Amino acid sequence: MSQTDDIEQLIELMSRLPGLGPRSARRAVLHLIRKRGLLLSPLARSMQQVSETARECLNCGNVGTSDICELCSDDNRANGILCVVEDVADLWAMERSGVFKGRYHVLGGTLSALDGVGPDELRIPQLINRVEAEAISEVILALNATIDGQTTAHYIADQLEHRVTLTSLAQGVPIGGELDYLDDGTITAAMNARKPI
Amino acid sequence: MSQTDDIEQLIELMSRLPGLGPRSARRAVLHLIRKRGLLLSPLARSMQQVSETARECLNCGNVGTSDICELCSDDNRANGILCVVEDVADLWAMERSGVFKGRYHVLGGTLSALDGVGPDELRIPQLINRVEAEAISEVILALNATIDGQTTAHYIADQLEHRVTLTSLAQGVPIGGELDYLDDGTITAAMNARKPI
Repeated sequence: MSQTDDIEQLIELMSRLPGLGPRSARRAVLHLIRKRGLLLSPLARSMQQVSETARECLNCGNVGTSDICELCSDDNRANGILCVVEDVADLWAMERSGVFKGRYHVLGGTLSALDGVGPDELRIPQLINRVEAEAISEVILALNATIDGQTTAHYIADQLEHRVTLTSLAQGVPIGGELDYLDDGTITAAMNARKPI
Repeated sequence: MSQTDDIEQLIELMSRLPGLGPRSARRAVLHLIRKRGLLLSPLARSMQQVSETARECLNCGNVGTSDICELCSDDNRANGILCVVEDVADLWAMERSGVFKGRYHVLGGTLSALDGVGPDELRIPQLINRVEAEAISEVILALNATIDGQTTAHYIADQLEHRVTLTSLAQGVPIGGELDYLDDGTITAAMNARKPI
């Protein structure tokens, strides 16, 4: 190969990123080398910085740079209402919508008998503790509409029954969605949950 | 937003890589944070290293970690035969095939009147110098089979005519290619260059 070891190693590391294979990693590295000053050095510094400071929030499981994350320590957010999500990416997606102003709880995955993921591998015990400790009145189960997501939602609902109001996200036609391209399950859900205009 | 500034900035920088948009950059950064020790720190170090050591070969334009690259300083490669490519990614692709054991010359792009790229913006003067200085007997124009690539090949061929043997890569059916999916131009080229079995 014509690349020297340093460059070779960078390509190998980059190819481990989700969404990049060996070919796109090579392309990205060549791009980085072309933009050494503008992109490669700042990126190296930024990664070093994040690798030193990033940590999981001890309370909710969000990723941030302090032991208790910005969302948990924000006095302007409502207490008493908790939105449960599978992972940090889901929390960020919720935050981008800006629709929810309460607190979050990140499970860190879904229950999966096949992969040996039980309640104690997720942050479910912590969730139950928080419901008590923070006097939560409503828990929104914003889990993915997948089999594993819904299994996990059912399990949590069983654990928290009678202690708290449990809700889940509405299911129906996505905004901008065309009926022609929707699956049967979504159309059925949207029809069953139809509402007066 | 729930991400703190450090993480936000890393996402922004990552999203400038070719092949990554804002969404996949977020996904990549979350993955990196999850694998802090195994991936993020080594990647930061590797980028820092490459940003300090990577440079363009003064002779051929390849990317490496010394002023004269491994390929130019390799005594086991043939002198006198030069393979001209558009950019470093093409050189690496040629090297992966392992079929060529001579020297390379990287142009750094193609001629383009629209984008204001003339011969002096590319490494064409250096190519002409090398043909004299290194007593080159054959120049292989391994440029892309695009309009710009072929225009550039014609220009170089004009400049070097009568001084050196000029060749280009054969055009035809790619290995594993199905006729049904090939464009007319490729089929025409393959038919015109047909050979006895």
